Amino acid sequence: MTERRERVVVVGAGLAGSLAALHLARRGYEVDVHERRPDPRSALTSPGGRSINLGLSARGMRALEGVGLLTDVLKRSVPMRGRVVHSPDGAVRFQPYGVREHEILHSVLREELISLVVDAAEAEPGVRFHFGSRLVHLDRETATVRVEPTGGGDPTTVTADLVVGADGVFSTVRQQMQHGLRADYAQEFLPWGYKELTIPVGADGRPRVRLEALHVWPGHEALMVAHPNRDGSLTCSLFMAHEGPVSFTALDTPTAVSEFFHRHFPDAVGLMPDLVRELADHPVGHLVTVRTAPWRYADRVVLIGDAAHAVYPFYGQGMNSAFEDCLVLDGCLADHPDRATALAAYETARKPHTDVLADLSTANFEDLRDRVHRFGYTAAAAADRLLARLLPGRWVPLYAMVSHTTTPYADALARADRQDRILRAAGAGLVMAAGLAATATLRAGRRRSTRR
Amino acid sequence: MTERRERVVVVGAGLAGSLAALHLARRGYEVDVHERRPDPRSALTSPGGRSINLGLSARGMRALEGVGLLTDVLKRSVPMRGRVVHSPDGAVRFQPYGVREHEILHSVLREELISLVVDAAEAEPGVRFHFGSRLVHLDRETATVRVEPTGGGDPTTVTADLVVGADGVFSTVRQQMQHGLRADYAQEFLPWGYKELTIPVGADGRPRVRLEALHVWPGHEALMVAHPNRDGSLTCSLFMAHEGPVSFTALDTPTAVSEFFHRHFPDAVGLMPDLVRELADHPVGHLVTVRTAPWRYADRVVLIGDAAHAVYPFYGQGMNSAFEDCLVLDGCLADHPDRATALAAYETARKPHTDVLADLSTANFEDLRDRVHRFGYTAAAAADRLLARLLPGRWVPLYAMVSHTTTPYADALARADRQDRILRAAGAGLVMAAGLAATATLRAGRRRSTRR
Repeated sequence: MTERRERVVVVGAGLAGSLAALHLARRGYEVDVHERRPDPRSALTSPGGRSINLGLSARGMRALEGVGLLTDVLKRSVPMRGRVVHSPDGAVRFQPYGVREHEILHSVLREELISLVVDAAEAEPGVRFHFGSRLVHLDRETATVRVEPTGGGDPTTVTADLVVGADGVFSTVRQQMQHGLRADYAQEFLPWGYKELTIPVGADGRPRVRLEALHVWPGHEALMVAHPNRDGSLTCSLFMAHEGPVSFTALDTPTAVSEFFHRHFPDAVGLMPDLVRELADHPVGHLVTVRTAPWRYADRVVLIGDAAHAVYPFYGQGMNSAFEDCLVLDGCLADHPDRATALAAYETARKPHTDVLADLSTANFEDLRDRVHRFGYTAAAAADRLLARLLPGRWVPLYAMVSHTTTPYADALARADRQDRILRAAGAGLVMAAGLAATATLRAGRRRSTRR
Repeated sequence: MTERRERVVVVGAGLAGSLAALHLARRGYEVDVHERRPDPRSALTSPGGRSINLGLSARGMRALEGVGLLTDVLKRSVPMRGRVVHSPDGAVRFQPYGVREHEILHSVLREELISLVVDAAEAEPGVRFHFGSRLVHLDRETATVRVEPTGGGDPTTVTADLVVGADGVFSTVRQQMQHGLRADYAQEFLPWGYKELTIPVGADGRPRVRLEALHVWPGHEALMVAHPNRDGSLTCSLFMAHEGPVSFTALDTPTAVSEFFHRHFPDAVGLMPDLVRELADHPVGHLVTVRTAPWRYADRVVLIGDAAHAVYPFYGQGMNSAFEDCLVLDGCLADHPDRATALAAYETARKPHTDVLADLSTANFEDLRDRVHRFGYTAAAAADRLLARLLPGRWVPLYAMVSHTTTPYADALARADRQDRILRAAGAGLVMAAGLAATATLRAGRRRSTRR
């Protein structure tokens, strides 16, 4: 058999693009991956590179397990067994992530994770990664791309059978694929941005805070989240408004930074010796939600990951859902020999769930900002966890379904809504029972006083 | 006094752009208007030009009155005193637009209306219209535009104090103004498109249907709307899905057209002798909603009309809201000597209302498609009209507020919601009263039978 192998161009070698390349190679395609940035493996060894950690949860783990990489990845990650919630009054509360042993997350460095996937993909025959290679143009009618070296040089034209757009939230593939079509597109920026800061390992070589957890400093005007690293340090993301009285713009002097941190995150100040310098030096990141359709064009172009659906990071599902895209796409390609049908099936199977994830991620921001400290919220969360313990497998809190299962997002939300209605009805029942009891007591009292 | 007059470049000489030019000229600016298309006044005299009619309602009339053009416009328009609703069974129902004499709409040709406004603007000192001149680039930092003749020739660079983006739904000004900013942007295409068809004047020189009305053929799979022209003809818009079993794509043979029209719009077939040819020749228009923010940049760039907010045409408010934008912007420029403040005030004052208009326009599509024929809908509408008659000025149906008043859209919706709640409570009260009456009757009956 000397059948010509079909050819795929993957644009973008981030999390989604590199995993898709691996899947496609194993499915028999010849794969060229073009990535604008330099090889992440060289960035790993270069000092001063920004370290971004991600929380790997069930969906991501399933995808990595499917390609045989989970063990390697877990070796390089730090388990997060729960959340440590820091209050402005200095109080610290540990909330386990789940009710069972395996219900934990894993903190992993983005570049390290990508490097493992790229290594595995490159080990497949017919896979070539081209770093520093930028997409200039896509012709969706012929699946032809023009790419050029970012360092200068002549562009090259490559015609493929399929182009995979894994080029992130401001995807060029998406833009050129949808050009002139009746495409729906919505981008929404959060008025808040983020900066990355460091909680370095202590002078004694030990972590300054409990390591195996995600640390959260909720807050109405600013909030922080910190992921652990293997060296005992933590990488912290500070979220707050871009502009306004309490904002990144307002933190323009060391005094302003110090006052701000002492007011909002008093117990964090001592953990972050480089705070002032890091705040001055690090860029502010933007947070954006993108929803769009279509995700595909005929049998020739398809979008995955942030290019198809970007979400705010507050549910920690960006990477996990990107990996899940790859899994679903691979399954659709396996199920449907006709590729146009496969791509359509992928979009149909996937989009309703990533739309729900966008809503959940926005809601989680609002929870972290406004509700985590409120009694109603913590009481409901406690009831949820109690029921999960009493009814194992039959009562699953939403967070657990999203993070510790692979139940599709929309199905998870629907089930959580049903559980919520039961809780509310139970609450109403309780109130009524209490009312009846009170009335009965009152009547009994009246009868007694009548008798007297 | 030889103070330098400030200079404005308006991009787009559609409805919004030409009225804005007139306002700005009267406010003392020197105004250059660049419009990609040819002069609409030459199109008026050219045969075969597409005639698009619009329904002028209270908001548009107020804006035209403000610049002294209303009388001229009304002379060129046909009053529409209500809706004629055509049912598939051939039944025809006339619904007056309002309960009072002035509550009517006016059908006017878009190009004729623009021509009147352009004439008035050109009569002002310091106003120049450049037709066939396309925007190539905008530098928002210096309010500099590069324009080039569409017919070929060298580009020109013009630096202004203010650039007004009136260049429609796919605005280049918007795109370049927002480039790299944290701009929110959402476009949504309706799966339905439209084609324009003609109901020509009868062989006897008289209109084939009642002229002074908007004709509506509602329908679940396709719907039509027809506006009257001064010559006794009507211009009809057929709305249906782009693709699918009942769609423009499916109307690919004269037989398919004939069967479709006989099934969906039986009483229209005889009115449209050129139906088959027109359906084959005319392009399918797209329908898109655009919401975005910001609408402005510093004191130098501002968006109006479709460039700021495009809506589906089903509420007939596209032109009216574009004219209202001009009025609000002009008022803000009058109120705030600092132009950055004026532009910010304009966006703040206006955007919540055009967002509501987008929702209302979508809801009106759904009504025309699914609900107009339903008993609940017609009963509620009848109750609404009756209350409006009984409580003049105190009970105003939503349609009347949108079309016959200048109450801002969001305020109109809020008031309609209150009225709706009253209606619903009254309905509930009625049901309960009926229930009580029935129970009482039953009890009385029982008492009687006990006595017997």
